[in-house]
Amino acid sequence: MKAYQDEFEIETTKRTEVVDITDEVEESIKKSGVKNGICLIFLPHATAAVILEENESGLIRDIERMVQEKFPRNAGYEHDRIDDNADSHLGSGFIGQSRVYPVKNGKLLKGVWQNALLVELGGPRRREVSVTVIGE
Amino acid sequence: MKAYQDEFEIETTKRTEVVDITDEVEESIKKSGVKNGICLIFLPHATAAVILEENESGLIRDIERMVQEKFPRNAGYEHDRIDDNADSHLGSGFIGQSRVYPVKNGKLLKGVWQNALLVELGGPRRREVSVTVIGE
Amino acid sequence: MKAYQDEFEIETTKRTEVVDITDEVEESIKKSGVKNGICLIFLPHATAAVILEENESGLIRDIERMVQEKFPRNAGYEHDRIDDNADSHLGSGFIGQSRVYPVKNGKLLKGVWQNALLVELGGPRRREVSVTVIGE
Repeated sequence: MKAYQDEFEIETTKRTEVVDITDEVEESIKKSGVKNGICLIFLPHATAAVILEENESGLIRDIERMVQEKFPRNAGYEHDRIDDNADSHLGSGFIGQSRVYPVKNGKLLKGVWQNALLVELGGPRRREVSVTVIGE
Repeated sequence: MKAYQDEFEIETTKRTEVVDITDEVEESIKKSGVKNGICLIFLPHATAAVILEENESGLIRDIERMVQEKFPRNAGYEHDRIDDNADSHLGSGFIGQSRVYPVKNGKLLKGVWQNALLVELGGPRRREVSVTVIGE
Repeated sequence: MKAYQDEFEIETTKRTEVVDITDEVEESIKKSGVKNGICLIFLPHATAAVILEENESGLIRDIERMVQEKFPRNAGYEHDRIDDNADSHLGSGFIGQSRVYPVKNGKLLKGVWQNALLVELGGPRRREVSVTVIGE
């Protein structure tokens, strides 16, 4: 059993943006040498989120639209009095800044249409992605 | 320390349906032999979700209703142009396809009213449930 | 590698309330002796939740308001016929009763504005918080 940690960076270019990070996560698992266990994808940020979904261009735009509708900007939030990004914080907190996959035979155990997507909610920003792989 | 992996299947019968999978997960933990650690319940699917809640028939219907209201069908999604299930994908991604319990003394450490519920969002389908138990 | 489990209690004072539990979780990690791995924060409850967000007083009130808006009380839920807290259950299940952080160098690997917040949805109550630290 081991606990292996890796990290990489992503540059986002818009305020709301979905970025596929599946390949980078698979690369971290390969480096870990872990064959069976779990993989935690975690953003050390409070204005971005992770979801696992199909990377289809229409669905990506649907996700971006739903984020903006569920967590609308400038909706009279108290936090906006000191920083104009309460919507980014709320979306990040409610959706969650992490997801966990099983790892099997050295790869993500995932559905065919279940990629790891970073959801930028307050970009453009440089984002760190932390990957922890635990297993044997 | 060990990482143990198991899986089982569930048949759903409706488009939106909540199915209690607590007993099957407890069985996987028993097979693992792990006494203390964590248990990851993960669906390798992008149109279903997992939540932990009370299995009371009224609340189950409330969950099904809330899923349909928060992620309504045919709401002008772009993904519906190629596949009529954007609502299923969005509910799955935002709610999440996994949950993690602690394991203590060989059982789920859970609240009395905190069962593991598979939330079908695009059924009827045959669903795989992956269980990973890590601990000692 | 080890799996360490700890728990502590929090008293909430209102029906909807956000309580910062970051210091208590950091204390559990210190006691665990784990330097690198993961930390699962889990509530064995079905009417409370955990999110990771900035502990700024305005944002805390925004979170409390959003919880009440997204999961309104007495909205004709079936569960309310037997217990007047369907909104608490629904918020708890959809937001989730747990979050996972990486642990690095014996501390939470977290963003500067990413505290662990217990979200009380059906208080006032005494709440248990379970902390499981896995790593080496």
